[in-house]
Amino acid sequence: MSESFSDASGSNSQYATLMNIELQSIGIIHTPFTELKGMPIQPAGGAGVQGTVEIFSTYREGLADLGGFSHLILLYHLHRSDGYRLRVVPFMDTVERGLFATRAPKRPNPIGLSVVKLVGVEDGTLQVENLDVLDGTPLLDIKPFVPEFDAQENVRTGWLENARKRVAEKRSDERFSKEFS
Amino acid sequence: MSESFSDASGSNSQYATLMNIELQSIGIIHTPFTELKGMPIQPAGGAGVQGTVEIFSTYREGLADLGGFSHLILLYHLHRSDGYRLRVVPFMDTVERGLFATRAPKRPNPIGLSVVKLVGVEDGTLQVENLDVLDGTPLLDIKPFVPEFDAQENVRTGWLENARKRVAEKRSDERFSKEFS
Repeated sequence: MSESFSDASGSNSQYATLMNIELQSIGIIHTPFTELKGMPIQPAGGAGVQGTVEIFSTYREGLADLGGFSHLILLYHLHRSDGYRLRVVPFMDTVERGLFATRAPKRPNPIGLSVVKLVGVEDGTLQVENLDVLDGTPLLDIKPFVPEFDAQENVRTGWLENARKRVAEKRSDERFSKEFS
Repeated sequence: MSESFSDASGSNSQYATLMNIELQSIGIIHTPFTELKGMPIQPAGGAGVQGTVEIFSTYREGLADLGGFSHLILLYHLHRSDGYRLRVVPFMDTVERGLFATRAPKRPNPIGLSVVKLVGVEDGTLQVENLDVLDGTPLLDIKPFVPEFDAQENVRTGWLENARKRVAEKRSDERFSKEFS
């Protein structure tokens, strides 16, 4: 890309529009991780970590038929991420990468995505495994994971090609916390 | 689940909280699909369908390093979906299912997710394939697809177990458009 880039404030684009979509949390994710430091950085790194997803009573009727699925996609509000930069040094690298080529939590729209294993559903609470989410995270959506929709073959993963094999051992540090921004 | 459920207005839950997260579109997805009727209902059904994702100039610096990835997760605003019901008859079924056990577009938080193939990146525009998205859809986020994070093995898919094999032939109808809500 040869053109120069404006800053990341979002205020001087001739196209960008604030949408004011009003999101509402449909539940809360409960995990053992109460601080950003030391968390697994992806579900693969959170293998076996158990937690619960509490769905608010208003929305529980929508959980019908969910128990037949082994894996779920959780969308959630990255409520502890504040602001963003368009180039970041990801947890799994030592050089700057374009934000959208990373899974770094500070993003223009702070929406997180994790694929987790569903262990059980009871009384509006989901028992899940493989969590990489901060305790108290507001849940935005649950979608069933379906390989025909969501899995891909012959995948290339750019700068992550070598680093991703080591993700299970990696832990986050505080570089994306508010205090270190 | 034995308890009774309140209605889906979200206003009378003792827990649910409006969050007022201000989202902003970071770009626009351009596809051949200008109306809801007749669209593929998932990227697998949109196999080979080409389109472009135009990233607003403000955000283009964040596209660095993206070209090394073969597949991307797009999060977008389901801007033509209006309201929701907690039980729906999905495109791929003939009986009601719990909303969160489906990929139906009318959801409490109207955020869509598609895994697409990245063909090229040039001057802030992504060439992508396998699109199942309406033309003009506001883009919220791009995340690189990484099998170690996003793919799963030994997956069960509940009511979709039989239906999903046929997804490539299925097309949407107008049941989730505003006019038919």
